[in-house]
Amino acid sequence: MADPLTELKTRWQTISDLRHAAAVLHWDQSTYMPPGGAAARGQQLGTLTRLAHEHLVDPRLGGLLDQLERNGGACLPGSADAALVRAARREFDRAVKVPARFVAALSAHTSALYDTWTRARPADDFGAVRAGLERSLDLSRELAGYFPGYDHPADPLIDYADHGMTTAALRTLFGALRAQLVPLVETITSQPPPDDACLRQEFPVDQQRVFGQALIRKFGFDFQHGRQDESPHPFMTSFATGDVRITTRFQLHELGDGLFSTLHEAGHALYERGVNPAYDRSPLAGGVSAGVHESQSRLWENVVGRSRAFWEQAYPELQTVFPDQLGPVTLETFYRAINRVERSLIRTEADELTYNLHVMIRFDLELAMLEGTLAVGDLPHAWRERYRTDLGIVPGNDRDGVLQDVHWFSGTIGGGFQGYTLGNILGSQFFQAACAAHPAIPAAIAGGRFEPLHGWLADNVYTHGCRYTPTELVEQATGHPLDIAPYLGYLETKFGELYTL
Amino acid sequence: MADPLTELKTRWQTISDLRHAAAVLHWDQSTYMPPGGAAARGQQLGTLTRLAHEHLVDPRLGGLLDQLERNGGACLPGSADAALVRAARREFDRAVKVPARFVAALSAHTSALYDTWTRARPADDFGAVRAGLERSLDLSRELAGYFPGYDHPADPLIDYADHGMTTAALRTLFGALRAQLVPLVETITSQPPPDDACLRQEFPVDQQRVFGQALIRKFGFDFQHGRQDESPHPFMTSFATGDVRITTRFQLHELGDGLFSTLHEAGHALYERGVNPAYDRSPLAGGVSAGVHESQSRLWENVVGRSRAFWEQAYPELQTVFPDQLGPVTLETFYRAINRVERSLIRTEADELTYNLHVMIRFDLELAMLEGTLAVGDLPHAWRERYRTDLGIVPGNDRDGVLQDVHWFSGTIGGGFQGYTLGNILGSQFFQAACAAHPAIPAAIAGGRFEPLHGWLADNVYTHGCRYTPTELVEQATGHPLDIAPYLGYLETKFGELYTL
Repeated sequence: MADPLTELKTRWQTISDLRHAAAVLHWDQSTYMPPGGAAARGQQLGTLTRLAHEHLVDPRLGGLLDQLERNGGACLPGSADAALVRAARREFDRAVKVPARFVAALSAHTSALYDTWTRARPADDFGAVRAGLERSLDLSRELAGYFPGYDHPADPLIDYADHGMTTAALRTLFGALRAQLVPLVETITSQPPPDDACLRQEFPVDQQRVFGQALIRKFGFDFQHGRQDESPHPFMTSFATGDVRITTRFQLHELGDGLFSTLHEAGHALYERGVNPAYDRSPLAGGVSAGVHESQSRLWENVVGRSRAFWEQAYPELQTVFPDQLGPVTLETFYRAINRVERSLIRTEADELTYNLHVMIRFDLELAMLEGTLAVGDLPHAWRERYRTDLGIVPGNDRDGVLQDVHWFSGTIGGGFQGYTLGNILGSQFFQAACAAHPAIPAAIAGGRFEPLHGWLADNVYTHGCRYTPTELVEQATGHPLDIAPYLGYLETKFGELYTL
Repeated sequence: MADPLTELKTRWQTISDLRHAAAVLHWDQSTYMPPGGAAARGQQLGTLTRLAHEHLVDPRLGGLLDQLERNGGACLPGSADAALVRAARREFDRAVKVPARFVAALSAHTSALYDTWTRARPADDFGAVRAGLERSLDLSRELAGYFPGYDHPADPLIDYADHGMTTAALRTLFGALRAQLVPLVETITSQPPPDDACLRQEFPVDQQRVFGQALIRKFGFDFQHGRQDESPHPFMTSFATGDVRITTRFQLHELGDGLFSTLHEAGHALYERGVNPAYDRSPLAGGVSAGVHESQSRLWENVVGRSRAFWEQAYPELQTVFPDQLGPVTLETFYRAINRVERSLIRTEADELTYNLHVMIRFDLELAMLEGTLAVGDLPHAWRERYRTDLGIVPGNDRDGVLQDVHWFSGTIGGGFQGYTLGNILGSQFFQAACAAHPAIPAAIAGGRFEPLHGWLADNVYTHGCRYTPTELVEQATGHPLDIAPYLGYLETKFGELYTL
């Protein structure tokens, strides 16, 4: 009989292998699978997911955790093994508290609703998803109900993605951020917008790809341990620390879309690739939370990838790749184009500054639905009103309004959006700490060298995987709890200079 | 409680999904996986294989089979369900008769030996694999020993790949074939060989791919339900009847390699794609035996793809794709080049006629090793002697001799080779039956229309999957038991004309 820690680790390897096998099948489904493979692929993914769940909720696993927790001395407090037991316990409890029949019902419902949504969105038909959304709301409340003791029904849903976060804490945080952002956007958008026509010329996709790959290779993306492929919806996926892949959607007449999405997904990939390989196939593998993950994608995409210093070095190279298109365009014009702030309707296309306002609208609306103060039927109206007050712009249809994001139509209502803004905040906080530790980082970036930044992130964030909670990780890496000051300082400096505020 | 047949089918879906998930991971490993993913991929495949095995040997599955067999009336004799129970029983028995610790030992041994072989072959170092091969021989005998009652230890190994075949039957069959082939090769190779230099010009790979895809599309390969990718070793893989893929290795200076391997793998794919989709995820899914599978790849590659009628239509198209290279080359020269017969060393590069001699050498040598009349240490010498007597040519090293094929270094000794020659024999037998049913088939092929042939194969071979045993299938489809006469007739007619014998 193996000792309980070894047995726990061995059992977790099976769970991990099943999940990563499912991730490979997902990746293939999104990149290369012929259309005729769809039906069987759904069944195969269903089986792998079910088996992973069955292995996770195996009572023997719970018994091992009980044993390991009883023997206080089995794992040295503060050790990686103690963290492993804690992380396994958290996943186990979450899995066993929710009845299998509920998991199946939620999964069946969200699959069907997603399918309906893919048709309802282009048809601008909120009516087609309304009943499904009402059912999603009921199921989201029911899911929260399996974790009694919360202050707000969104709390367990948020905690799942961003452990340690609560509705109350986020309301305070987002409120403070919003109080600063709204007037900033106000001032900026009262000025004439920069011309970004230079980004919407014809840019052959092969050259876009080659240029983007050269950039992320410099960031530290390792094509011996990763790939870039194309898919309609860009994503990052990891099958092990040794095989971390990104996908991109390139558009012939939109340079920014493929380029910044490449940098964004590469940021996610650097994180997964940088986790201590000793944690592979254990509960400590992978990124620790949605917010910390998003901090890395947004840091590389925006803090680095939309900075003046970065493009001082990279823009001449981009001009060499696209001499006809960008030869006549100055660095200043390009830099202002990629940082153009505007009141717009679509979150995923929003600039760095207004992006958070889009997120907060969704966050507040989902809280209101969970509280019962907003009925699903009133959601389109509430959406338009919030866009009017927060962004000064109103969608003329639901396609570019409440139907635009997949989240509510493919999962729970609650827990899916806060990570984006947490990521923006944390990205700046990590970057500030990195620069404090290595003041040469900004100069290195301006020289096209990213190793100092990448090295600090690898040592202070990436390598830890799930060894620390997000709260512990942020405090250890930056010396402070989560704080909006670095992010606000970053935005004010950057956009103050751009718009001479 | 579900009825036993439904429960059997449901349980088999899990086994099938796990195997197909493993197939997707294999496909990715061979096509797109970055090198850094190899270690984790091995673990993931190990887990999926282990879980599929565990589900297969579940005693509950055996209990269901017992129940279904006891109730003689549960499945109508001759029905698809009765065939399903029979096929499930065969797989279950094979799995439970072999202890799990033996399966693990064999798998670990062959993985390690394969790894050694990948280095030993280029280094021409038989000594490096000798001990491993001795162990493989012991394990092959041990595996046979779990199926007592055989006449020859190769019987259970052969039966696994080609159900219904025995060593004795194959010896008779191959002996008769060899008696005809050896003098035929003798006569042909005494004539001056055709010039095949036209195949070894520079042929840009993209154009090779486009031309090959156009051909197999005409055969019936459906890119909505399949793909073609590149890999170092070409193969076909199926994840469901709706997703059947092939891989190819193209060589810039060798037109034949990529072209005929495309047709070959497409033949395998047409078979898998053509199985009744109602059999998906059941024991009746997929091709029925190695020999019948190979009959389809060799039929499309050789009987169709190396025929004069075929190229009368296709060669002008090929000349259009490669005008500089093939514009000056006549159809006759090209046709003779792709059918050049020569005494050569490498099986996979051998022509249609000598190919079987390569196979029979291996078949006889593995029987001798299993019988104990040939020691592993004497294998390289025996190999050279058999090449001298059968093909009149002796390899100057083991790299192009006994080390050339992966089979003995990645699996059992025995059971791996007979399917190739069975495929050649059956390919002609099926083709003759198809032409007897539809005498217009040869004219259709000469006109570039393959539907009549594909349709007959689909109706008489493909759709049945594993519903009938290979023996039953051949008799039903052709009206005769396995017979070498059609194959010999085909070879004599074709090569008689080519070499004016």
